[in-house]
Amino acid sequence: MKIKVINPNTYLAMTKSIDIIAKKCARPGTEIMCISPERGPITIEDNYDEALATIGAIEEVKKGMQENFDGYVIACFRDAGLYACRELTEVPVIGMAEASFFLACMLGHKYSIISILDRFKSSMEELLKKYGLDSRCASIRCTNVPVADFERDRAKGEAALIETGQKAIEQDGAEVLCLGCDGMVGFDQVMERTLHVPVIDPVVAAVKMAEAVIETGKKTSKIMTFKSPEKKEIVGYSSIFQI
Amino acid sequence: MKIKVINPNTYLAMTKSIDIIAKKCARPGTEIMCISPERGPITIEDNYDEALATIGAIEEVKKGMQENFDGYVIACFRDAGLYACRELTEVPVIGMAEASFFLACMLGHKYSIISILDRFKSSMEELLKKYGLDSRCASIRCTNVPVADFERDRAKGEAALIETGQKAIEQDGAEVLCLGCDGMVGFDQVMERTLHVPVIDPVVAAVKMAEAVIETGKKTSKIMTFKSPEKKEIVGYSSIFQI
Amino acid sequence: MKIKVINPNTYLAMTKSIDIIAKKCARPGTEIMCISPERGPITIEDNYDEALATIGAIEEVKKGMQENFDGYVIACFRDAGLYACRELTEVPVIGMAEASFFLACMLGHKYSIISILDRFKSSMEELLKKYGLDSRCASIRCTNVPVADFERDRAKGEAALIETGQKAIEQDGAEVLCLGCDGMVGFDQVMERTLHVPVIDPVVAAVKMAEAVIETGKKTSKIMTFKSPEKKEIVGYSSIFQI
Amino acid sequence: MKIKVINPNTYLAMTKSIDIIAKKCARPGTEIMCISPERGPITIEDNYDEALATIGAIEEVKKGMQENFDGYVIACFRDAGLYACRELTEVPVIGMAEASFFLACMLGHKYSIISILDRFKSSMEELLKKYGLDSRCASIRCTNVPVADFERDRAKGEAALIETGQKAIEQDGAEVLCLGCDGMVGFDQVMERTLHVPVIDPVVAAVKMAEAVIETGKKTSKIMTFKSPEKKEIVGYSSIFQI
Amino acid sequence: MKIKVINPNTYLAMTKSIDIIAKKCARPGTEIMCISPERGPITIEDNYDEALATIGAIEEVKKGMQENFDGYVIACFRDAGLYACRELTEVPVIGMAEASFFLACMLGHKYSIISILDRFKSSMEELLKKYGLDSRCASIRCTNVPVADFERDRAKGEAALIETGQKAIEQDGAEVLCLGCDGMVGFDQVMERTLHVPVIDPVVAAVKMAEAVIETGKKTSKIMTFKSPEKKEIVGYSSIFQI
Amino acid sequence: MKIKVINPNTYLAMTKSIDIIAKKCARPGTEIMCISPERGPITIEDNYDEALATIGAIEEVKKGMQENFDGYVIACFRDAGLYACRELTEVPVIGMAEASFFLACMLGHKYSIISILDRFKSSMEELLKKYGLDSRCASIRCTNVPVADFERDRAKGEAALIETGQKAIEQDGAEVLCLGCDGMVGFDQVMERTLHVPVIDPVVAAVKMAEAVIETGKKTSKIMTFKSPEKKEIVGYSSIFQI
Repeated sequence: MKIKVINPNTYLAMTKSIDIIAKKCARPGTEIMCISPERGPITIEDNYDEALATIGAIEEVKKGMQENFDGYVIACFRDAGLYACRELTEVPVIGMAEASFFLACMLGHKYSIISILDRFKSSMEELLKKYGLDSRCASIRCTNVPVADFERDRAKGEAALIETGQKAIEQDGAEVLCLGCDGMVGFDQVMERTLHVPVIDPVVAAVKMAEAVIETGKKTSKIMTFKSPEKKEIVGYSSIFQI
Repeated sequence: MKIKVINPNTYLAMTKSIDIIAKKCARPGTEIMCISPERGPITIEDNYDEALATIGAIEEVKKGMQENFDGYVIACFRDAGLYACRELTEVPVIGMAEASFFLACMLGHKYSIISILDRFKSSMEELLKKYGLDSRCASIRCTNVPVADFERDRAKGEAALIETGQKAIEQDGAEVLCLGCDGMVGFDQVMERTLHVPVIDPVVAAVKMAEAVIETGKKTSKIMTFKSPEKKEIVGYSSIFQI
Repeated sequence: MKIKVINPNTYLAMTKSIDIIAKKCARPGTEIMCISPERGPITIEDNYDEALATIGAIEEVKKGMQENFDGYVIACFRDAGLYACRELTEVPVIGMAEASFFLACMLGHKYSIISILDRFKSSMEELLKKYGLDSRCASIRCTNVPVADFERDRAKGEAALIETGQKAIEQDGAEVLCLGCDGMVGFDQVMERTLHVPVIDPVVAAVKMAEAVIETGKKTSKIMTFKSPEKKEIVGYSSIFQI
Repeated sequence: MKIKVINPNTYLAMTKSIDIIAKKCARPGTEIMCISPERGPITIEDNYDEALATIGAIEEVKKGMQENFDGYVIACFRDAGLYACRELTEVPVIGMAEASFFLACMLGHKYSIISILDRFKSSMEELLKKYGLDSRCASIRCTNVPVADFERDRAKGEAALIETGQKAIEQDGAEVLCLGCDGMVGFDQVMERTLHVPVIDPVVAAVKMAEAVIETGKKTSKIMTFKSPEKKEIVGYSSIFQI
Repeated sequence: MKIKVINPNTYLAMTKSIDIIAKKCARPGTEIMCISPERGPITIEDNYDEALATIGAIEEVKKGMQENFDGYVIACFRDAGLYACRELTEVPVIGMAEASFFLACMLGHKYSIISILDRFKSSMEELLKKYGLDSRCASIRCTNVPVADFERDRAKGEAALIETGQKAIEQDGAEVLCLGCDGMVGFDQVMERTLHVPVIDPVVAAVKMAEAVIETGKKTSKIMTFKSPEKKEIVGYSSIFQI
Repeated sequence: MKIKVINPNTYLAMTKSIDIIAKKCARPGTEIMCISPERGPITIEDNYDEALATIGAIEEVKKGMQENFDGYVIACFRDAGLYACRELTEVPVIGMAEASFFLACMLGHKYSIISILDRFKSSMEELLKKYGLDSRCASIRCTNVPVADFERDRAKGEAALIETGQKAIEQDGAEVLCLGCDGMVGFDQVMERTLHVPVIDPVVAAVKMAEAVIETGKKTSKIMTFKSPEKKEIVGYSSIFQI
């Protein structure tokens, strides 16, 4: 089984971390290829970044279609471009956020999302409503530590994550925590040791869900929302974007 | 007052029609500039098209920021790129869909959306949930007449719109109809004569709402969802996309 | 364009303030006539007051029907009598609360209502549910300063409004504030200078929305909820209330 | 126990029918006084009627406060004036609609409301949302037989009720039917014989709920929504309406 | 009228207390028989306990069917086995929780549930959603005092209940409090004296609602959710469980 | 990895079919043990059956705890006993219904449940609300073919499933179909060939989700909803049910 893991931002150090985690959690028979697009913002922190990054995600799925992947993971907690990418191919395309939510729902009744900046909240709420999953979400709590700092100063990142997770548990009733950013990858186990609740690494969630969906042999439904894009004239985009 | 009306697709005949309607409904003191981006799909019919068109909408707001517009209208019934564009500028940016919904809510208790293809339904539902307006929407009904046909064969378009509107009124309880596509622009009055309910032209709705919001003198809130995009490295996009 | 602004309470000093704001924000071509009914409570603070005030609002629309108004504004944040008044006439009737909510939704993703007494909360919630707008409302916060005090001691009123608005922003995630009482009219700009978010004056919102709706030329839908009242015997009310 | 049953319309034949049913279903120790207000519309079929009838209902509770009633029933399926009346007194005030919904919920999982005119639907939906009971309601179906006809031509009324009820059961999944109008009083048993589901007479529901609530000895909560109306100047209303 | 009150746990002291309250609040003509099943957990504090207790509740309804009861009360605030028991008999079966919620809704606009352990919250939320009553519930607050302690140390229990109720009123907007456990029976009046809001004793609520429903003469709807259980082979259960 | 698949009914032919499918879809390293409890109804078609079957499911998890399973599957589309079983063990316990819903959500935007008898609808709705997944469910449609008939007359079963699925697709907008009963196991591929949408076999969904969750190494959250059952006296149950 070949899975292409698309980190839609262009932060290559983060792509490297995702690659390591993805390969570590994948099963022996699963081949992981983890990449960043050639174009896009270095991190995805607002609707503007997401719009630019979506084009990159699309381009990578388009490229992947020549390479016979069995499935794709969108490794961004906004699931940037997920619905557009699902239109392009019939093999499963799994978003990191949706996969985390589903996994969390099988481990506890209520989960909280640990996010970065306060401005992420409305995007997270929008995603939860789009997926119809808002009622299981106890809260969205933000560390307000910049993404890059998790890499630069792990002790600071760890402290912020534990403090934020603690509040979600004590004040909001969270039973499971979802790490809402690839920058937080690798902190799940240290948090679990202190907080005593399952902490979901979104890369792990997405890879395991992708493996499961691919193994069922089912393909994306092509009759309605995810029908192939309508054929039409597209101007100002390179040939790979033509339908 | 100067309003830039952005038709995010690249169908110039449609942009021309929008321009005519927008100028006709605008007040004497309102200057309308209606354009299409240089890049993008010729119509917007799926999530893929919307992703590509969003880049064009963003680019046009970016350009507009050098030209001192008092506000923007996104003239696409998916409100493509609306939230990203609101991040870019503090002057009001109004979506054609949201404006139609608000206007409809002031004219009747329940409205229906007359859309094009069945595959649009989930996008419309997503928009209604994002805006928190789903409970006033009686139904989303589709003509399944391709967009281009409304231009080519107006009699056919008119018949399809009236038949679909009739069902929304009789079977779903619609009291107001929202035309859910720029391609349907100009059909509102003929429909009203037959169906005896208000029919909302989305261009008119958006222009009138934009004028109203601009005249209040209020600016987009910049503390949370619509804060300016975070400064960062963006690769593979031209300089206009840099923050 | 002639708009009748009905303040459904009988507090004439407040009607005077509303008149000033309404005329100031109206466009040159808009003629504003702002009145209070002859009957009713001096302020509207509970369901009992609202029931009495509704009769006054109705009477004023009935009178207005002889005077060819192009539209009406109900200048009470409970939108007292709005749905009954819409049944009476086909010209637009706009509620101050609904107009504020719609305007707020075009300026930010989440808004809070700044209200007066805690007992108003359930009425506000009822209104939000009736309009299907509850999911965009971050919170309803009350100053617990009596209405009359805003007139008598503006410094106290200002301090209470700023403190309450601050909490809505910091604790509830409000991006826009709606002033939920005519008594708060005129405080929006001072609040904006301190709080750095748009603050909606409900009179301004209602007048601008009324102008916009009237200019579209659309009339209230008369097929269902807002059909004319059924003809019937009505006893114990003066002739103006007969249908 | 003394219960005042207020039929807020001025249709005395209907008041007489309500009186008979109420007395028949009341327990031996329950004294029923059933009246219509002196003012108001002869039937309540729209928001306009409801506004006028609410004043009558209020006046009758005000009068009742001198007569030591143990509770009140608002015998109108819009629960006209219910929340205002609850503010006036601490003894229980029960609405015919809410009582029917609660009773229906104890007899089946989903109920439908059998209403009169299509225009009632949005009022019924508003009531269900206000009460937070919409998810148990399978449908609101209307006979479109004028209220007066139920009295004049019982065979026609019966046929319309059975046909409408049948559709609610077969197409909407109703397990219980609520008769949504006092005009339908007395048809429950004939409907049950044909339709084999419980059919709720709203007068019976309200009287039995009132007896139950009164016997608990509990009073209406006076700390928030139903605090006594604020003391204030009220002009243009007779002395009984002063607080 | 004969009502069987089933306390589904096996704590006989609690059954005795329930019996006393039920008989005290019942009307002269109502005969109460209050029992515990022969099998089951001594208290019901989790989903596991509830599963075991449900079998006991079923068995007691099955037994009751030979004894011509006019109705049943499930005296457990999880309404353990309510829907299964309703399938077994056509006479009314009333849950203590649903009865409390309905009674609370007639006494105030928002109520809070005073529960025991934090782990009860998700069960309470599940119940509220199942009943479609979540929007009237201001909060679920837990005393975290073990059930048995209410019996052993009434002063401690009283203090915990008053403190928890106070928070529900002040922080959550509760206007009525529902005591969410049979162990709290008998504390309502002392709480009302301090907190000045109605406090619902669930045994009283259930008995009064049962009397009211039974007196209407209506039976449980047998066409859908509560049809009699399908006849089938059942192994490993005694003969009383056979259908 | 060792997974115990518990079919909570006592229909051994069905258990055999589940065993075959489960083993066929499991990965090489997964050891499946599929059993029925010793006690319980032969099929689960109502709340009564579910209550009895829950005890059997619990007993089998209790037994499994001595045998070092890595996870459990509850192979009943009501997820009978799921929450109680999760309290008992910290290894993952996966319900067939929840697993189907999550898988369906990754293959299409809206899914329908193909169920058996109309009376199942309210139980399905209850489950969807409990899981907070109702907004993705397009409809619940029932074949009204008895469970046993799917085994006895496969051609009839196939025809009923295809007809019901077709309606869900055409009338309700389903993009994915979930087979809502173990009796329908093995029909997914024949349905897919005719209907051209993914059809989810619930046994496959549950086994693949269980494998995925187990491989993440995460355990059920034990701080709140799924804490171990409280220790207490339990009478009338055999020793295996003691905590």
